[in-house]
Amino acid sequence: MTPMTSFDRSQPVGVFDSGLGGLTVLHECLVTLPHEDFVYFGDTGHFPYGGRTPEELTAFSFEMAEQLLREGAKLIVVACNTATAAALPALRAEYAGHVEVIGVISPEARQAGEATRNGRVGLLATEATVASGAYERALAEVAPDATLVPVACPGLAPLIQREGLIDQLVVDEVEQACEPLREADVDTVILGCTHYPLVRAVIQRALGRGVRIVTSGHAIADDVDRALQAAGLANDQTRRGGYRFLCSGDPESFRRMGTRFLQLPLGEVRHVEVAATRELVAARSEGRP
Amino acid sequence: MTPMTSFDRSQPVGVFDSGLGGLTVLHECLVTLPHEDFVYFGDTGHFPYGGRTPEELTAFSFEMAEQLLREGAKLIVVACNTATAAALPALRAEYAGHVEVIGVISPEARQAGEATRNGRVGLLATEATVASGAYERALAEVAPDATLVPVACPGLAPLIQREGLIDQLVVDEVEQACEPLREADVDTVILGCTHYPLVRAVIQRALGRGVRIVTSGHAIADDVDRALQAAGLANDQTRRGGYRFLCSGDPESFRRMGTRFLQLPLGEVRHVEVAATRELVAARSEGRP
Repeated sequence: MTPMTSFDRSQPVGVFDSGLGGLTVLHECLVTLPHEDFVYFGDTGHFPYGGRTPEELTAFSFEMAEQLLREGAKLIVVACNTATAAALPALRAEYAGHVEVIGVISPEARQAGEATRNGRVGLLATEATVASGAYERALAEVAPDATLVPVACPGLAPLIQREGLIDQLVVDEVEQACEPLREADVDTVILGCTHYPLVRAVIQRALGRGVRIVTSGHAIADDVDRALQAAGLANDQTRRGGYRFLCSGDPESFRRMGTRFLQLPLGEVRHVEVAATRELVAARSEGRP
Repeated sequence: MTPMTSFDRSQPVGVFDSGLGGLTVLHECLVTLPHEDFVYFGDTGHFPYGGRTPEELTAFSFEMAEQLLREGAKLIVVACNTATAAALPALRAEYAGHVEVIGVISPEARQAGEATRNGRVGLLATEATVASGAYERALAEVAPDATLVPVACPGLAPLIQREGLIDQLVVDEVEQACEPLREADVDTVILGCTHYPLVRAVIQRALGRGVRIVTSGHAIADDVDRALQAAGLANDQTRRGGYRFLCSGDPESFRRMGTRFLQLPLGEVRHVEVAATRELVAARSEGRP
């Protein structure tokens, strides 16, 4: 672990993800907290995370968290469902007392638990996220009487990641995914993958107007705000913050595709390796002091 | 005027605009009212409307309204600020008792009047819209004590209409436009041009988190809903609606650019001329029975 000194409120918030999807989370943070600085790290060199082992995912996550701490992060956001499910407890244990780590899943589950009136909450997510059962556990904590109706959408994130436009393929995929949610009469749906807010309009039309959609981005931005306030680390609200990017893949491709996810200009994008060696993976899986 | 028969609730809602901007209004209608059918008419052959005379704008507006009625529209939405300012009273007078015509400006003014706490409301709009004074009048009707701080942004809509991405040019233009709004300490800002929702995140960052943004699309979707309910013309909420497009310019260019504005797939786009002849313009400006 990087030795910790006390943080200054002028330091940036660090955000990491398997690639580009977490930029929809960063988008909400930038809109909600325009006075904070952000550093985003996308592990585009290892995207997608779907087929990785928990050990690999934990090793990648620690690599990125350490890099963000070297960049001066005062708080770390895991803006990836797969990495949150695999590594959040380990990250929190490692950095306890030093730096707060906020992940997806719990914030959306809390918002969904508060929003539902009929106790039936839908989930759209990748196969890995659905299989992890993480949303069931998170929802049970905040709304024990609520029922989660999870739907795995293996094809949707790749369709959205294409450079193409929102087309009939996307609509068909969304319609198919929403069919069981309509049949289950859910009144609230969690978008459990950070790619999905890019097709939110398609999803809302498929679900119908009465259904409330909860996204990771909006829920996390609130949590980041609360955490910074509570720690006395919130920056001066009258200033204008900045943001910059690290990625483990091709920076030019990150810049070209990223604007669509961020809906803001991408500025500096720097290449940084995420080198999770076998030794590192082994060390992580054996546990660290 | 096209002879009117009584409407059936299964008929579509007609929406027209000078080009593509109104698609952000249609977007909100499609998300809010997924069970209704819509026909959208974009006068891309005459875009932009900024430099047109009121007589021309009125003639174009009637041409499009008549076409939408031929397409079976049960309600007409003027999704263009310039056309609303120039032609809404004439359209309403012409179709009174036959078909309801809803325009922009009043719905946003009402939402802004309800939202403001300190009575200072900002407006970002084109030069023509600011010069018309239409938002001052609309705000004065609903919130007589509120003050409007209008800012003309002549360069912003063309920057957004470019096929390129959101870049530093857009950010600089937005920052410059928002500077007087920050100085005036407004707590609510109306996006008085249908192009601006595409850079909503840039605007929100420039204004700061405490400022509420009001858009035409959201305000109009509520008005369309209310009007259809009141007239007994709301469609069955369990069905899935469709939408299609007419444009007076090149359909291929409309389809290519339109998806970015609509954030949904563009389906059928048909070319229809908007032929506002000198004779027609003269007839309109002399008044019609």
